[in-house]
Amino acid sequence: MDYQESNFDLTAYLNNKKELINSELDKIFRKLASYSHIVKAMKYSLMADGKRIRPILCLAANKAVSGNLESALPAACALEMIHTYSLIHDDLPAMDDDKLRRGKPTCHVAFDEATAILAGDALLTLAFQNLSSPLNIKESQALLWLNVIHIISIAAGYKGMIDGQMKDIISEGKSLSLDDLKNMHALKTGALIEASIVSGAILGNGSQEQIKQLKIYAKNIGLAFQVTDDILNVEGNPVVMGKAVGTDKNRKKSTYPLIMGLKESKIFATNIVNNALKTIEIFDNKADPLRAVAGYILKRKK
Amino acid sequence: MDYQESNFDLTAYLNNKKELINSELDKIFRKLASYSHIVKAMKYSLMADGKRIRPILCLAANKAVSGNLESALPAACALEMIHTYSLIHDDLPAMDDDKLRRGKPTCHVAFDEATAILAGDALLTLAFQNLSSPLNIKESQALLWLNVIHIISIAAGYKGMIDGQMKDIISEGKSLSLDDLKNMHALKTGALIEASIVSGAILGNGSQEQIKQLKIYAKNIGLAFQVTDDILNVEGNPVVMGKAVGTDKNRKKSTYPLIMGLKESKIFATNIVNNALKTIEIFDNKADPLRAVAGYILKRKK
Repeated sequence: MDYQESNFDLTAYLNNKKELINSELDKIFRKLASYSHIVKAMKYSLMADGKRIRPILCLAANKAVSGNLESALPAACALEMIHTYSLIHDDLPAMDDDKLRRGKPTCHVAFDEATAILAGDALLTLAFQNLSSPLNIKESQALLWLNVIHIISIAAGYKGMIDGQMKDIISEGKSLSLDDLKNMHALKTGALIEASIVSGAILGNGSQEQIKQLKIYAKNIGLAFQVTDDILNVEGNPVVMGKAVGTDKNRKKSTYPLIMGLKESKIFATNIVNNALKTIEIFDNKADPLRAVAGYILKRKK
Repeated sequence: MDYQESNFDLTAYLNNKKELINSELDKIFRKLASYSHIVKAMKYSLMADGKRIRPILCLAANKAVSGNLESALPAACALEMIHTYSLIHDDLPAMDDDKLRRGKPTCHVAFDEATAILAGDALLTLAFQNLSSPLNIKESQALLWLNVIHIISIAAGYKGMIDGQMKDIISEGKSLSLDDLKNMHALKTGALIEASIVSGAILGNGSQEQIKQLKIYAKNIGLAFQVTDDILNVEGNPVVMGKAVGTDKNRKKSTYPLIMGLKESKIFATNIVNNALKTIEIFDNKADPLRAVAGYILKRKK
């Protein structure tokens, strides 16, 4: 089944889940000490207009294995906190030195560098606080949650997302091979996307076989997401995207359009998304949200 | 019983436990991908000559409640990772801009700012990876470990250590009241010290009453540690300490010696340590390490 042929309403699903995540994050922040300077900075970046792709993938994978939405929500929120922390730190002057993010000045521009570093640290730490909260976790599920914490910490850590960002910085100005570029992105973006999907499936009591297929789906989706990111950096609309375009070229970054050409990059992205869709053919229509997200990656404008 | 009157060999205990922690951290790092740039930076800061006070306190509290040393070791290592990450980030140019730490150039001086930010991020994340590792955790103890993860993440987070550092930066150049100074340190240093002690006790299956007393001990020890830190910044030997002295005065930082006077600060530190010792009178000689550490805080030269 092609997701485009199904009756699944992609836009409604994405909007609905985005609102759900925003409302959950808002609930969490209403409980925090709102007077504190650090909480203001955390909230500023977290509650900007993010796509919420990682939490949505977490919930979609949870649904695909017939999980109960509530069971995955704390993990979904934690994943968005980790993603946002990584954006705040990546945007710092010592890293990518970006001024605009999610349509607003970056955290270090709106506040200052020290506050941005600490706000990132605090969001990362809050993610683990949320993943271990007795308010969220049934005693009988303690082991599942430890497993999810372990998987997410590995994906976000020294051999996942952080290594990817390190490699990205080191390779700036150098020309990478296609394999090196893929490997860097598998770490920088792919690892946390995979962890999002696997966490959702684990918390929905998915089988080993289901999780195995979802991992392959995740690897393809993660790669497609990065390829389309590079394409948008070439031909996207900065107003719609809420951030500058053409920055990769200015920084002489290795990108898919640079290595493969723009047209070929689009074909490549379509092929990987089709691979992802094929991998989840074993699932019934409860996987339609996963199919929809795959489609969204190709069509997104930001 | 006064710790100084007991037969407990303080120096041997501290050296022995420091070596144990170093050897455990070394084991963890031997398993990591040693070729990676980010791992080199993490190891550089973590394996510098730290005092290992937080892990030692964790193990000492574990012993005080008759725990099994092995059960607390993964938490002890994680606490040192979190402490080291906080030092790396606090030393950054955007924060305290320190050039020397643990007798060596700070991480951003030895590597660069981007690497130091990411190495800190990676140590924080590795701490949670270690706290959730199936290699370390018996299934029957899953709930205990989730509790420990939760306590540590709260202590290290937006209303603990990070808020303390934020307040420290904001207050630079302003004169603080004694109460504001105590509150800032309770967050910046005290929270993680308390979490170290409570974690050790939880993992040793300590009773609620024992944990309650250990918390009061921890609050006193944490405060004493900061007061002596301020005293050492006035009259310490930079060669012995492995970092510069006189920096608080140059930055016009509010410190105990500045607010109370140097002599009064020393009396204050002695009084708080005596309070701490009194709190743990309910424990037998298995709490001698805790008594010894309290004594060490007053005598330390670095």
